[in-house]
This record gives sequence, structure tokens and C-alpha cells, in this order.
Amino acid sequence: MIAVHLESGRVEVRNVPRPERPEGYALLRLIAAGICNTDLELQRGYYGFAGTPGHEFVAEVAETDDASLAGERVVGEINLACRACGWCARGLERHCPTRTVLGIVRQPGAFSDFFVLPERNLHIVPDTMTTERALFTEPVAASCEILDQVSIAPDEMVAVLGDGKLGLLISQVLAARGCRVRQFGRHASKLRIPAARGVETVIAGGNLPKREFRWVVDATGSQTGLRQALSMVEPRGTVILKSTVHGELAIDTAPVIVDEVTLVGSRCGRFEPSLELLARGPERGGIDVESMIAGRFPLAQAPEAMSRAAEKGVLKIILEA
Amino acid sequence: MIAVHLESGRVEVRNVPRPERPEGYALLRLIAAGICNTDLELQRGYYGFAGTPGHEFVAEVAETDDASLAGERVVGEINLACRACGWCARGLERHCPTRTVLGIVRQPGAFSDFFVLPERNLHIVPDTMTTERALFTEPVAASCEILDQVSIAPDEMVAVLGDGKLGLLISQVLAARGCRVRQFGRHASKLRIPAARGVETVIAGGNLPKREFRWVVDATGSQTGLRQALSMVEPRGTVILKSTVHGELAIDTAPVIVDEVTLVGSRCGRFEPSLELLARGPERGGIDVESMIAGRFPLAQAPEAMSRAAEKGVLKIILEA
Repeated sequence: MIAVHLESGRVEVRNVPRPERPEGYALLRLIAAGICNTDLELQRGYYGFAGTPGHEFVAEVAETDDASLAGERVVGEINLACRACGWCARGLERHCPTRTVLGIVRQPGAFSDFFVLPERNLHIVPDTMTTERALFTEPVAASCEILDQVSIAPDEMVAVLGDGKLGLLISQVLAARGCRVRQFGRHASKLRIPAARGVETVIAGGNLPKREFRWVVDATGSQTGLRQALSMVEPRGTVILKSTVHGELAIDTAPVIVDEVTLVGSRCGRFEPSLELLARGPERGGIDVESMIAGRFPLAQAPEAMSRAAEKGVLKIILEA
Repeated sequence: MIAVHLESGRVEVRNVPRPERPEGYALLRLIAAGICNTDLELQRGYYGFAGTPGHEFVAEVAETDDASLAGERVVGEINLACRACGWCARGLERHCPTRTVLGIVRQPGAFSDFFVLPERNLHIVPDTMTTERALFTEPVAASCEILDQVSIAPDEMVAVLGDGKLGLLISQVLAARGCRVRQFGRHASKLRIPAARGVETVIAGGNLPKREFRWVVDATGSQTGLRQALSMVEPRGTVILKSTVHGELAIDTAPVIVDEVTLVGSRCGRFEPSLELLARGPERGGIDVESMIAGRFPLAQAPEAMSRAAEKGVLKIILEA
């Protein structure tokens, strides 16, 4: 079988043996995978990663001891937790300190003809949901996570900064869950996707409103995003950090204290609300993910696919097995 | 009358006319005032301040149109709000965008024989409370503010970083309000004050526990405090920022996002819970403020008093009229 191998900034496709299936794990045959910004960051050295990336996938269960999963089309939670610690006991496997993470931390990822994942991590994709749509389960879960962390009242406006892949999902998810959303981005061609879903969109240069929003989500993925978000939030407001950036950011904490601003780091989310929302589809007040697909490549052309995904302004690139 | 004047780093005592009393304001005769770190920061150029500082005070109401206040011993809320905006309507005068702040922002402060404050800002000090004790109303209110912003369950441990004036009040306030508190400082002589009030105290060098606390309060007043607090907080935990420091801090936001940490800026608080807590006294499970008093100076010796307050390790210095 083939698998993508990433090391020291190089991406290659290798012929490798099919992985062993440990007890409690399913062997998965890849159907399709999505390239996420995290994959591009792994390529740049994030986590000192060397191995097979990929954590957004739809696969078929090829081998399993769980009869309910055999042959099913599935998506999978990416954190492999110990299930024994206090975090796991609280249902927060995503924070288990000894966890591995599919395609990110010590667990070979999904950019591979076959890969393994614990059976308990898998969710069956409903027959009525296309593979394309199901591919967005993980990033939509990360967007839903915001509403697991904070309570936004329906009359409060949320500003979303950034119109990259995650920003476009976050604004749509918040709008679909009843929030009033104003999204600030730089690309009319991207902003039309959330605009069609009821998000108010603004093409913003440097000219952003000051101290105006109770809630601001930084999904810029850039060094300047947090600074911008802090200047836009009102006193006692909350900034949600969704932009993982490298290295240190210089911020002035005095206004955070004087204005009693809250900052909330936000990462992965539960798959259940994501699958529920994706099942709705845009025609039923859900979100539009199909318009975000910018290209498809066979798995064997992963290096070209990752180069394409890294180009400025390109949305979701899909790898197909 | 005399008033302290602070400008370009110089402190002097001046003879000045007694202030006019605007409608709705009381004329206050100073009894005693406390020197806060903010006063020392104003001296260093914080807010480009020039004028009379002082915002921790106990005074006698010398002139007023409110018969219930005449002749009373009072403390006063330091934010002078418009009472017309949305913030004021929500009871958050402390965040009114056009507010002035006693002795800090465009309102002459309390280091003065006489000064004025709106009658509505005043709270009568109970007869049974000493002036010394009442002098701590403002910083104790700032400590109580934490529990107005976040809900800490009784079984959760709170780490307080720093054993300066504010740190010693915060740890005692949290303990008096039922929290389990572990305070990290550098001075055994200071830490014995909260230790006697049920706070677990640790003399810590650089050797601080990692990822161990659900709640961490940074009251170090130092550039390194936030970084230390972030290293001590557990995933999904909260860091409360109480250290106003100058300029920008470089922080790595990636762990904040990966561990979904929350940061909460915290400033002034309501006087009601503070006065209630101060009325209790240490003998009834309240807090010990008397042990924090490090010296008394007459108002006319304010320059010497401020020099003394600025010395390393010195706790509360009081000015007496």
C-alpha cells in the first residue's frame, strides 16, 4: 500500500506494509482525506513531526472486532486517549496528557491507503451524507467547540476575523446555531460562502472597528490576528483564539486587565454536534462545505496536493484513495 | 490646604486652594490614604499622569447636599461614570467609556487635605470598623472582583502567584470566601499573613509546579508572572490576570490554544462585598489587613512616603492628614 511520508519539510509517497491492527482497533481503508493547515504546519516543523500526516478523513472499516462497524463508512475522533486518567473520566479525552493524535502526535495519520484507529473513536457516517460533506466533520467539530466553551446569547453579535478554511466554517457554524455573525476577511470570493448562509461579511483592510464586539473569534491564522481581535473586543468581552501561530506573540496585557477582557483558547471538538449539523445541509439551515472544495488529487499525488493547498487563498484540497 | 502633586516622576507637596464642589458631589476631608502600586506606576509615567494621585482613602464628609452623608466617615468608589451609557445601565460604571478615575484619570485624587467625589460613589464606613481597616476597601474590592468574574468550586485549588500587597489580599479573600488557596511567594515574612488565615503558602524560587492548577491568579506585578501562571495552569484551566505591567509581553499562544486555557483580565470591584468581608475581621473568618501596614507618614511627607512604598518588599504605607 502507499502512504504519505513527511520529514524535514519533504513530502513523499512511499510503499509501506499494511499496518498491524492492535486489539480494540479497526483497520481503516481510506476513501478520502482533507488537507488541513495543521498538515502544512507539520510540514514546516511544527511538533518536530516525522511520519504520515492526515487527520481529516472518511474511511471504510476493513477489519474490526465490532460487528456494528464492519464495512461501514466512518469518520474518527483524532485523539487517542488512555481512558484511565481523570481527564478521560470527565469525558475530556481530547486533553488526556498521554494521548497520541492521529497524524499529529505519535500516531500514523490518514494520508495512507490503510491506517488504524481505536474502534471507540469511530462514528458511522449516515448513508444520506456524501463523503465530501463528511470530510468536514473534524474541522466543523473544532468550530462547534466554541459553543461548548462559551455561551453566546442570540442577540449578541460575534465578529469572526479571517476568511480561511477554519474562519469560513466557524462563521457558518455560529450562524447555523443562531448567532448573529459579522465576518471580516480579505477575499470577496471566499466571503460569499458564509454570506449566502446569513453571515454579514466585510472586506476589511486594516480598518477594523474598535471596542465594538462582545465576542471576537480570531481565525486569521496570522501573527496579527490576536492583536486585531483585542482591539475589536469591548470591555468585559471575550476573544476566542483559534489561530495556532508559531513562536511568541508580543501583546500588551494592560488593556486586557483594565477592560477585563477574557481570552479563550479553543482547539478540537466533539464529533456528535458536528455530524448533526453537517447532516442538515445548507438547504435546511445548515452549512455549505461543498463550495469550499478547491481541488482533488489522488493520494499518490500528495506532494502536488500539499503544494497546491499551501498556495495563498486556496481552500480545501482533498486526497482520494 | 496641601495636596500632593506628581509630574514627570517628581512628587511634591503644594499649597493649593480647596476644590470647588460640583452639584451632586461631596467635599471630603481626608482622614487617611493608602499608597498603591498604581500610584508608584503613575509616578513612573503610566497614563502620562500629572496631578494629585490617591484612590485608596477614608475621609469625612465635610460638605454635601445629602443629609444622610453629612459628617460621616466614608470610602468611595473610584470610577466617576456618566450614568447614561449602556455600561452604566448594566451596573458596570467601572467600564463606562467616558469615566474619569479618582487620582488616576482626569480626576484629582485623595492625597490632598480636601477633594471631591460624587455622593453616589460614597459608602459609609460602619462605626465598628477602624479607619485602618476601611483603607483596604478598594484593594479588597479588586480582590473580590475575581469571584464576580469566575465561579470557583469549593473543592478546586486556586494558586496565587506573588506575595505583594495585592497578592496577600487576594489569597486571603479567596480563602475567606471558601476557596482552597496555595500561594507562591518569595518572602516568609509576608506569607505568614495569609498562612495564619488558612492559606497554604510556598516559598518558591523558579521551581513552580507545572500544569497542576484549575485556577491560577497572577498577582506578581512582574513581566514573568503571566508566563509562570500559564505554565502552572492545567488544560481547560483559567489564569486570572491581576498584574498590570508596562509594555508588551511575549507569550506563546500555541499552548493556550492546544490546552484550551482561559485568561481573564481583572481590575476594580464592587465595594459592597469588600466592606462586608472587612467588617468580619480575622477573628470571624475574615482577613487580616492590619499586619500589612508597614508605615505611616503625615500627608506633608508624601514624597518620603512614596519613596518608602517603592522600596522592595515594603507592604502598605499610609498617609495621614
